[in-house]
Amino acid sequence: MSAPASAAPLKVGIELGGTKCLMMLGTGPDDIRAQARIETTGPHPTLDAIDDLLRQWRDRHGFEAVGVASFGPLDLDPRSPTHGCVVSTPKPGWSGFDILRRLRCWAVPVGFDTDVNGVALAEARWGAARGLDSFAYVTVGTGIGVGSIVDGRPVRGLGHSEAGHLRIPRPPGSSFAGTCPYHGDCVEGLASGPAVLAHAGLPAEQLSRTDPAWDTVVGALAALFHNLVLTTAPERILLGGGLGMGRPHLLPRLRSALLASLNGYGVADRIAAGIDDFIVPPGLGHRAGPLGALALAIDARDAASR
Amino acid sequence: MSAPASAAPLKVGIELGGTKCLMMLGTGPDDIRAQARIETTGPHPTLDAIDDLLRQWRDRHGFEAVGVASFGPLDLDPRSPTHGCVVSTPKPGWSGFDILRRLRCWAVPVGFDTDVNGVALAEARWGAARGLDSFAYVTVGTGIGVGSIVDGRPVRGLGHSEAGHLRIPRPPGSSFAGTCPYHGDCVEGLASGPAVLAHAGLPAEQLSRTDPAWDTVVGALAALFHNLVLTTAPERILLGGGLGMGRPHLLPRLRSALLASLNGYGVADRIAAGIDDFIVPPGLGHRAGPLGALALAIDARDAASR
Repeated sequence: MSAPASAAPLKVGIELGGTKCLMMLGTGPDDIRAQARIETTGPHPTLDAIDDLLRQWRDRHGFEAVGVASFGPLDLDPRSPTHGCVVSTPKPGWSGFDILRRLRCWAVPVGFDTDVNGVALAEARWGAARGLDSFAYVTVGTGIGVGSIVDGRPVRGLGHSEAGHLRIPRPPGSSFAGTCPYHGDCVEGLASGPAVLAHAGLPAEQLSRTDPAWDTVVGALAALFHNLVLTTAPERILLGGGLGMGRPHLLPRLRSALLASLNGYGVADRIAAGIDDFIVPPGLGHRAGPLGALALAIDARDAASR
Repeated sequence: MSAPASAAPLKVGIELGGTKCLMMLGTGPDDIRAQARIETTGPHPTLDAIDDLLRQWRDRHGFEAVGVASFGPLDLDPRSPTHGCVVSTPKPGWSGFDILRRLRCWAVPVGFDTDVNGVALAEARWGAARGLDSFAYVTVGTGIGVGSIVDGRPVRGLGHSEAGHLRIPRPPGSSFAGTCPYHGDCVEGLASGPAVLAHAGLPAEQLSRTDPAWDTVVGALAALFHNLVLTTAPERILLGGGLGMGRPHLLPRLRSALLASLNGYGVADRIAAGIDDFIVPPGLGHRAGPLGALALAIDARDAASR
């Protein structure tokens, strides 16, 4: 007695990444009707290719909302004259480009947020953060991104979460200066993939588990988690990304290091009681990016019908 | 043609502090009909004295909501079995005491939050954060409290903001170990009143403006502000408290130190363009505490009528 597939209210998710753009048409991870990959080049040819695909999907399937989860930094402030634009990026042509205006031509609700916030919302809807109003999604790779969900929504104010760049204590005894071009030894400068490479002289995947460079990574991420616990009060922290995933040996070390850092303060006892469920891997794996964009589309549709 | 005063919808604000309890009956800073001060002793005698006063005020004036802005840490999670209780405190008898249940006997809506969140909400309603959805109120005194307002509401999740205890870089070249019994050199351990006393050997009010202990205070608070900017994205930071207020020479130093720390990253340019309006003193002065409780009462009344 189910409705025919063609009548289902489909949405489009577009993960706009620095090198590639992943698109999905569907209603969720178990109902993807079409997907595609487009190379990210300049803004106009990239958006032209996206439009071509959207036209095909509209004619064949129809869709009622679009979500864009984009590389950034982005202007997410609806009151700003540059709302919907990439703020500033070394990628040629993209600085100041108005992604949102371009996609609004489709005359359906458009959700727009950072790639990291998109994944966080997808994890809340279908993944490892189901049922939680407040949590953080941390992705460790080329950079360190943090999506902080508070009261069911990504934190926004003057800008959006950039907690990968928090100021934290230096690792004791270390002379490693860090690799962040802005802050040197912020979290990203100490614990991202390029930081590990600069520190150890080898990429993370070639380091032994006992390499001392991991001590710096664990110390920096534990300080990040400590600071997240005491600012945005997450009920859980999801750790993903190229460096975060596939290294399950890090999780027990990070759990111990966070508890040692909190040292019994505040909600530390409650965290300790459920620590294995407090720092966890994400649930959506490698499809998390475009599913994040799909989650933004669903939220935009819901907001438009309220 | 105004309604008689007795018909106005009055609210009660109760600032429950560690040594004293300040109560106000009214509708806002320009309309306070009664106020009182009660010593904070054990929980039962203190609440008995509060009840006596509430009975008088009800009979003489009437009130339609009560707000309590309390010392903490507090359990603010409505799903928790200990919601409304003081979580753990060295104050005899208060650990586990259920403040909220006791006040609900009055059969009016009861707002309940930390003293710092209360002040933040009062500053949003009547003070230096009017019109802002996202900001932080930082109070520096015996301890360092941070009220983070995101999307118009205090951040809540697993616990509440305790950002005075963030992990931050040590001051370069300093051997001062910090005074926080939990974390040593967290923000509070480096920049609170007791920290300045331990560091300089003199209380803050006796230090000259050029004392090097202020360098540590400025460095620690700038790191706190940096980390707040990148986690909760405040549109403004209000700096109050015994050590924060009355020392206007700190504000220009903190503004410069924050911009130096952000070093152009993310929203730094927007902050720099309005820096004198970004780190500011609070607007409500010494009445901020009980006005914070009054703001909680107003919010509780509004929530109950939605």
